[in-house]
Amino acid sequence: MLEKLKAEVCKANLDLVAEGLVIQTWGNASAVDRERGVMVIKPSGVPYSEMKPQHMVCVSLATGEVVEGKLKPSSDTDTHLILYRAFKGIGGVVHTHSLFATSWAQACQPLLAYGTTQADYWYGDVPCTRKLTAAEIKNDYEANTGDVIVETFKKLKFDPRQHPAVLVASHGPFTWGKDVNDAVHNASVLEFIARLNSETLRINPKIKPMQGVLLDKHFMRKHGPKATYGQR
Amino acid sequence: MLEKLKAEVCKANLDLVAEGLVIQTWGNASAVDRERGVMVIKPSGVPYSEMKPQHMVCVSLATGEVVEGKLKPSSDTDTHLILYRAFKGIGGVVHTHSLFATSWAQACQPLLAYGTTQADYWYGDVPCTRKLTAAEIKNDYEANTGDVIVETFKKLKFDPRQHPAVLVASHGPFTWGKDVNDAVHNASVLEFIARLNSETLRINPKIKPMQGVLLDKHFMRKHGPKATYGQR
Amino acid sequence: MLEKLKAEVCKANLDLVAEGLVIQTWGNASAVDRERGVMVIKPSGVPYSEMKPQHMVCVSLATGEVVEGKLKPSSDTDTHLILYRAFKGIGGVVHTHSLFATSWAQACQPLLAYGTTQADYWYGDVPCTRKLTAAEIKNDYEANTGDVIVETFKKLKFDPRQHPAVLVASHGPFTWGKDVNDAVHNASVLEFIARLNSETLRINPKIKPMQGVLLDKHFMRKHGPKATYGQR
Amino acid sequence: MLEKLKAEVCKANLDLVAEGLVIQTWGNASAVDRERGVMVIKPSGVPYSEMKPQHMVCVSLATGEVVEGKLKPSSDTDTHLILYRAFKGIGGVVHTHSLFATSWAQACQPLLAYGTTQADYWYGDVPCTRKLTAAEIKNDYEANTGDVIVETFKKLKFDPRQHPAVLVASHGPFTWGKDVNDAVHNASVLEFIARLNSETLRINPKIKPMQGVLLDKHFMRKHGPKATYGQR
Repeated sequence: MLEKLKAEVCKANLDLVAEGLVIQTWGNASAVDRERGVMVIKPSGVPYSEMKPQHMVCVSLATGEVVEGKLKPSSDTDTHLILYRAFKGIGGVVHTHSLFATSWAQACQPLLAYGTTQADYWYGDVPCTRKLTAAEIKNDYEANTGDVIVETFKKLKFDPRQHPAVLVASHGPFTWGKDVNDAVHNASVLEFIARLNSETLRINPKIKPMQGVLLDKHFMRKHGPKATYGQR
Repeated sequence: MLEKLKAEVCKANLDLVAEGLVIQTWGNASAVDRERGVMVIKPSGVPYSEMKPQHMVCVSLATGEVVEGKLKPSSDTDTHLILYRAFKGIGGVVHTHSLFATSWAQACQPLLAYGTTQADYWYGDVPCTRKLTAAEIKNDYEANTGDVIVETFKKLKFDPRQHPAVLVASHGPFTWGKDVNDAVHNASVLEFIARLNSETLRINPKIKPMQGVLLDKHFMRKHGPKATYGQR
Repeated sequence: MLEKLKAEVCKANLDLVAEGLVIQTWGNASAVDRERGVMVIKPSGVPYSEMKPQHMVCVSLATGEVVEGKLKPSSDTDTHLILYRAFKGIGGVVHTHSLFATSWAQACQPLLAYGTTQADYWYGDVPCTRKLTAAEIKNDYEANTGDVIVETFKKLKFDPRQHPAVLVASHGPFTWGKDVNDAVHNASVLEFIARLNSETLRINPKIKPMQGVLLDKHFMRKHGPKATYGQR
Repeated sequence: MLEKLKAEVCKANLDLVAEGLVIQTWGNASAVDRERGVMVIKPSGVPYSEMKPQHMVCVSLATGEVVEGKLKPSSDTDTHLILYRAFKGIGGVVHTHSLFATSWAQACQPLLAYGTTQADYWYGDVPCTRKLTAAEIKNDYEANTGDVIVETFKKLKFDPRQHPAVLVASHGPFTWGKDVNDAVHNASVLEFIARLNSETLRINPKIKPMQGVLLDKHFMRKHGPKATYGQR
């Protein structure tokens, strides 16, 4: 079942390690087959050197139950499920503890857009969630982590397809995309702009976000209905 | 047509990736044949792994029209054209979003000369442009980016051959040189001095630019009419 | 004698170099066989390129005397011995001068827990020792370095198995674990969280340690009696 | 003449590139044969990829004249000569523009000793010279650079064998050692401690230099008459 998707998810998990975004075993990638209502995710605690497509775990998108696979799914499975349920347009989710994105999550601050590098991918900020309450941490922690992400996007009225990442306060980044490869790509771009923002602010701590008109220009040049970027 | 120049431009684009100056697909290199009035530039959105000399696009320096090549030229083509038209002595142009140079562009600050590393290449500052106006961004954005670079050099009375780079505010660096290889080399040096300036200022935020006489000594020792550097 | 342990200790020392945690020759790893009362440690000043298991030195845990091996043991041998004697649950010890952990040791500050990356490994802070007194430095310096580490843990009432590292003021980090591989792993994680804390504090110098309930959740999810992490 | 020394100097120059201490062509290494009164130094402006021992240039220690070799010696030749003449105990000299050491030179500040990593190599600070005067820059600049280094050591009453490096203000580092390999090694250690000091001060800007008694302990444990480090 879903052999192609399992291969893609396995490769995505290994790509995250190869790109230096997943350090040690701190991260996971998943994809969804919305027609079948199944999410494919990395198993928990399996060494990367031995990870094969057949180790990927199939989970029901509706119930969260394992529908195929002998191993236990990633400990962050419930967070991934919540994201797929709430963000209809996404096909893949990635979680990492990559250095610079995690430092912003630990600092509990969003990444404001200071230049066109960010504007080519995000239609403004990368938001940071509020901290979870003690009750949210004690029970259903992983599901509540998903819920606080969804709450953040609702509150800011952000379209998740135009802001393909979030920083979870005191924790780290989640990214997503049209498929799991796109989610990995966005994790890589996020790490770069997180570092870029840190360097920018150290040079000029008073710098303000870029002009809205420049943000519009760059985001729409690449993602808008009249996009001119690439060979289309 | 221009097979040698296409090969050089293709190699320059791949060198920028190999040196870590172009991340993802964020950058482009071009060269000009002034006798024929043709600029050769990277196509838009073609993966680096598949890029070949025959993919390079030939554009008329006078009109900006594609004169050879099946692909669409880089989205920054108009910026490159403006630079070749205004800066007569240059043969190659490079644009990147390299981390440290871009952080200075986002901070909207020039790179002042704090030591001999910069003085061996720049006869003083690496300037930063003003921000574009809303009107300049909305229409002919890429050409206006070129114009604001030219305006910056005119206003400062800088000779582009003595200051082979600029930071475009809220965007990133452009460099140039006598040919496209030289422009790549200057992009690499610029990234180093951008990082060096950041590190210097964090140690001593009150440091002032180097003595003018030391700047003169180093720049002229290497680039002046009586240069003594190298085996000449 | 102890051929397997010698091979492990030799490999651990080489792994520290390969991971960039030991720069030049600045570091050492050891393991203990508690049944035999013997510690196996790297020799002093032998080049890594020539280091073989048979060069490892066997030292009596009780007396500190060399019981096997032709070479002189590491100059930090007495510190390792003190740690094994005081911290009953540990099987391996590592000392490095890795860049970021050492910068915190030189800054004489503990690593407070700002996020779940640290909470997955440390049940709170990575402590920093007080400075040694002049008398402690002049005589039995290496043993006194061990003693001040033990004193630090007693004073803070920290369980060394829940806080597998320490920063020695004006010096650098020591880590430990259930065996020498685990100690190397903890040295690697420590270096990451040291850098992560530096980056976090530069973004938000006023950030406070993470919520105690979140620290509990993450540490216990992985290390507590009801741990759910991995394939158990 | 001096084939062995030429091979050593050539290899040292290539090692500096391999270790990332010489970026582009910014650096040079030399060695001296004091019995013959000859210094062997890298030629000026020869690409590293083509550099061979036979390209090294032999210069008279007494007069500065080329006594063998077809190429022009490094533009910093006069600085090297002054150092060999003034510092009798040294056999090799290295100059680089390595990132972190150069940032301290540009910041015009010495590297104070904050921990044992520095104390294992330097008996205290790495000094920074004063700026050269306009007259010193205009005439005999390279020789005056050497003179201001010697002046710095005399003023501070530093033994160059106990402080094997200097930062030249607004320029970059020079290191030395008993031979050219040792000078390369010290250039590598200097770069590490320069970065380590920057990281330390960002964590704790008010940190004071380490205790004198700890500095003594570490320097003397490795370099003193009763040294206990290594297999002696």
